Amino acid sequence: MSSSKSVLKLALVQMAVSANKSENLSRAVRMIGEAAQAGAKIVTLPECFNCPYGTQFFREYAENIPGNSSQTLAAAAKEHKIFVVGGSIPEESDGKVYNTCTVFDPTGTCIAKHRKIHLFDIDVPGGITFKESDVLSPGSDLTTFTAENVKVGVGICYDMRFAELAQLYCKRGCHLLLYPGAFNMTTGPAHWELLQRARALDNELYVATASPARDEGAGYVAWGHSTAVNPWGEPIGKAGAGEEIVYADIDINAVEKMRTQIPVMHQKRPDLYEVKDVSEK
Amino acid sequence: MSSSKSVLKLALVQMAVSANKSENLSRAVRMIGEAAQAGAKIVTLPECFNCPYGTQFFREYAENIPGNSSQTLAAAAKEHKIFVVGGSIPEESDGKVYNTCTVFDPTGTCIAKHRKIHLFDIDVPGGITFKESDVLSPGSDLTTFTAENVKVGVGICYDMRFAELAQLYCKRGCHLLLYPGAFNMTTGPAHWELLQRARALDNELYVATASPARDEGAGYVAWGHSTAVNPWGEPIGKAGAGEEIVYADIDINAVEKMRTQIPVMHQKRPDLYEVKDVSEK
Repeated sequence: MSSSKSVLKLALVQMAVSANKSENLSRAVRMIGEAAQAGAKIVTLPECFNCPYGTQFFREYAENIPGNSSQTLAAAAKEHKIFVVGGSIPEESDGKVYNTCTVFDPTGTCIAKHRKIHLFDIDVPGGITFKESDVLSPGSDLTTFTAENVKVGVGICYDMRFAELAQLYCKRGCHLLLYPGAFNMTTGPAHWELLQRARALDNELYVATASPARDEGAGYVAWGHSTAVNPWGEPIGKAGAGEEIVYADIDINAVEKMRTQIPVMHQKRPDLYEVKDVSEK
Repeated sequence: MSSSKSVLKLALVQMAVSANKSENLSRAVRMIGEAAQAGAKIVTLPECFNCPYGTQFFREYAENIPGNSSQTLAAAAKEHKIFVVGGSIPEESDGKVYNTCTVFDPTGTCIAKHRKIHLFDIDVPGGITFKESDVLSPGSDLTTFTAENVKVGVGICYDMRFAELAQLYCKRGCHLLLYPGAFNMTTGPAHWELLQRARALDNELYVATASPARDEGAGYVAWGHSTAVNPWGEPIGKAGAGEEIVYADIDINAVEKMRTQIPVMHQKRPDLYEVKDVSEK
């Protein structure tokens, strides 16, 4: 396999999100087009790209899947013949609301759907208090898909704090983990990049995030700084706080190279520990 | 419990290590005394504190345990009425050589012994190539001890790359993980601090390392930068490259506080994944 064949261009769309859903959808479509124009083969939107982030908004903005938002993304994927990882939207299903990421292939077919598994319930006095579980229900499935030769595992935001999820994706053969997410002004500077670099290094794969652009006037102020990290644990692309598209080359040869140089994957001690995939039972 | 009662002062002794074993032992004893004088209740030495780091040295410098080096540490612990975590020494046992850490309580009793579980076999072209397993045998036991109210898990250097070990120590109730270690000029700048911060944040506990001081003339040049990280993932003490003692306050209340604020320990999904402690079977 030639080196260029092994490289897939990833785009992380750090878009501004407003209270106007149709404006958010138009903006997403426009930026997907821009990223495709620039050669991206996988374009990732932020968490809650069609809805302000806040428990008071989720039910109001929620849609079925398929529905208007997901169909809009499907059309954009098909038009540009690329993979679209649709950040997340509030999804309504059987009276429940989920924080859900839909993934479309270059024909516009929905090939994966991830419902945020770990809900964001935290309470840091003087920092941030939030309780997604007041409104949202958690997902219970791991989600992977394959884009050309790259196997991708999907998590949403707070899912990134759980090392075990990334470890299972690694065991399932992923080369790249994508976490659409919206960290905030407390946990963002403290943990956003650290978690990405940790997941990348520990599992020797690529990790990338897509955040909404920062809006100082919003009720929940997103940290921004959408980032891509290589298997060596090194950031290879990073946005500022404002609206921006970040690009990164995903090279599965770099995954293999890292795993040969520092072969921790082959040096684990199954006689002492094992990360069990209970979900497969 | 009063707040001051919950705090234990930890010292990380970043000592220079030479080819002269008795000089290394004297230096260790002197610096343990200095740290005790400064109020430290747990004093940690670096990996291979009595021996240059290199496969050509391990067998020559190896000792039984108990033996001269470990008895010297026992005496220092007893004299100063502190816990001494003896970094590591090459240990000879039944014809095999291990990279072993001994731990002494304030009475000079050996309360724990950790043999490095994951041997350092890596090959980064243009960076560092090393193969501990040419000479060393791996340990097969997890090691914890309790110092006053602080439960401590022990790993040595490359053990830190294996998230699962830290996850098991967390499950066993540790508040602090200690990794005597000697990263190098390739992996040090890239991964030393990242791994410590990752283990601390993912498990919401303290993590600390003790490295030999850097010696540019040595065959293996240690990175130095002995560090302590709090449960928020933030470095709270960090050495430079040279000989130095770093101090950090270990407060088990800070562990509990972090676990209340960002309660990932209670939000894990045992229906999807589990880090199994196979060693207990």
